[in-house]
Amino acid sequence: MAYYVGVDLGGTKIYTGLADAQGRILSEIKVPTAAENGYIAVIRRIASTIEEVCNQADVPVTEVSAIGVGAPGPLNSETGVVHQAPNLGWENAPLGSDLEKLLHLPVLVDNDANLAALGEHRFGAGRGASDLVFITVSTGIGGGLILNNSLYRGAGFAAGEIGHTVVDPDGPPCSCGSRGCLETLASGSAIARQAQTLIASGGGRGILVRTAEAPDEVTAVTVFDAAAGGDAEALHLIQTAARYLGIGIANILNLLNPSLVVLGGGVMESGPLILDLVRGETRNYALKEAYASARLVPAELGERMGLMGALALAIGKPTGIGAT
Amino acid sequence: MAYYVGVDLGGTKIYTGLADAQGRILSEIKVPTAAENGYIAVIRRIASTIEEVCNQADVPVTEVSAIGVGAPGPLNSETGVVHQAPNLGWENAPLGSDLEKLLHLPVLVDNDANLAALGEHRFGAGRGASDLVFITVSTGIGGGLILNNSLYRGAGFAAGEIGHTVVDPDGPPCSCGSRGCLETLASGSAIARQAQTLIASGGGRGILVRTAEAPDEVTAVTVFDAAAGGDAEALHLIQTAARYLGIGIANILNLLNPSLVVLGGGVMESGPLILDLVRGETRNYALKEAYASARLVPAELGERMGLMGALALAIGKPTGIGAT
Repeated sequence: MAYYVGVDLGGTKIYTGLADAQGRILSEIKVPTAAENGYIAVIRRIASTIEEVCNQADVPVTEVSAIGVGAPGPLNSETGVVHQAPNLGWENAPLGSDLEKLLHLPVLVDNDANLAALGEHRFGAGRGASDLVFITVSTGIGGGLILNNSLYRGAGFAAGEIGHTVVDPDGPPCSCGSRGCLETLASGSAIARQAQTLIASGGGRGILVRTAEAPDEVTAVTVFDAAAGGDAEALHLIQTAARYLGIGIANILNLLNPSLVVLGGGVMESGPLILDLVRGETRNYALKEAYASARLVPAELGERMGLMGALALAIGKPTGIGAT
Repeated sequence: MAYYVGVDLGGTKIYTGLADAQGRILSEIKVPTAAENGYIAVIRRIASTIEEVCNQADVPVTEVSAIGVGAPGPLNSETGVVHQAPNLGWENAPLGSDLEKLLHLPVLVDNDANLAALGEHRFGAGRGASDLVFITVSTGIGGGLILNNSLYRGAGFAAGEIGHTVVDPDGPPCSCGSRGCLETLASGSAIARQAQTLIASGGGRGILVRTAEAPDEVTAVTVFDAAAGGDAEALHLIQTAARYLGIGIANILNLLNPSLVVLGGGVMESGPLILDLVRGETRNYALKEAYASARLVPAELGERMGLMGALALAIGKPTGIGAT
């Protein structure tokens, strides 16, 4: 029997799982990243979680066939070097080769949004689709592309930056240097910021009452709660975000004509309202044929998305009889 | 020796060429489409051009290995059915199978923008690139995608509709039902329309004097000529179009991170001004890494683009020793 390890490395936690070739989880563990202790401490911590999941399942570490690691930030998936991960304080960190030296096992590294796409394609909402676009809408907006059954990484491993497609050239400036990027208009942070602006101008009572009258504590969740409670201003903020998401998704449909769009992340998981609104707005802006080809569906893997993607990366392409 | 035929079927002309497996043209012919005579007349006319190019090169038609045909409009490249070609007056025309019956040879059909991409990839500005985005800016705006060395057609054969990506949600309505599509803001027709609007409001003297004072005769060419002559209003119109092209291209770079963008069509061939402006605007809106990965270059095949693409389709993937 072949064993594989997936590691979902985030700014706050390391989530590691051991699985078989079908992606069935045999054991898993979640520990704080403790990035403040430095790069070496983090890779040792990753190594110890791998030993731990193997111990839990009574599998010798030497029997693991490959390890997949999902890491934040721009990285080179061929060399395993993480170029920049501000939330870990890393720059040009040779994560893949350092873990290989430590563990004496093959290590594959890719970025978290790509692996979320891969995880949903292999084990989640995208099973059986040859092409899919994965979009995550949470604090920021990211994405990954599966084209012809493979992760599409682009010439500089930078494909899938859906959050930085421009949907309103007169929109607010973005940290990337452009303006009107989807992320500045429809992410969780954007929704919270727009609510705070509304409150600062004297509106948004129905949102503010859901906090201790503290505008700084207003988040996208507050806005969604207020909208669910019937607050018209909150609903308007969400409709505006949904309109921009619809434009961004329509642009992708018109460009790539995928059969499936998988939507994940905290904002999309806030309830059925946002998905319905986004579907309607996408239809408004997409070509009829492109919209007709595509199903827009919620992601299925929830908090295990990155882990399952890291496992899919480790397992590689299904081959042979009985491959899933 | 293997022979292949390419047919570039347009609303006004049929351009047919015979070539060897390396795409070297042995003979070619151009005749009017005469679409007004009906579908059957057009396919007979295509067949006679094929006989003619074979006769010219003294090659028996029976020695042709395959025929590639580029046709306008949405079509199914698997069945060879052209769904809609308003400029030919066709609806659901089984072009591929009808030509096969007439010629007793394998016929492959694809749309003109896809084949322009394929032609530039195989024989033009995209030689050697594994991925490229082709964009044509003329009366309308279209495009085609080569991903992993293959034409990427999408789930409904509708990929590459770059002209219908939204670059300004408050922009003018588009014939597709959306608004602010790139085509409504940066195509040759859009530039001409904006110049006419400017003239109607009392401006644009420097443009109008280049026609017989007839606003209806103002085209994108008039505007480019005026700009080249130093007219500030004309230059402003072109800068505006270039800005929207830059946004549209930046969105594609951020989404796909290609190594190459090939720009063709009448507007892009108007002179060096537009390419320089488009490069600058793309840089303004693209992620730094995505812009750094990509070269933006002019198309090389000119009026032979569609024909060479049709030949590339007929020839298929290069294989074996000595393959180009």
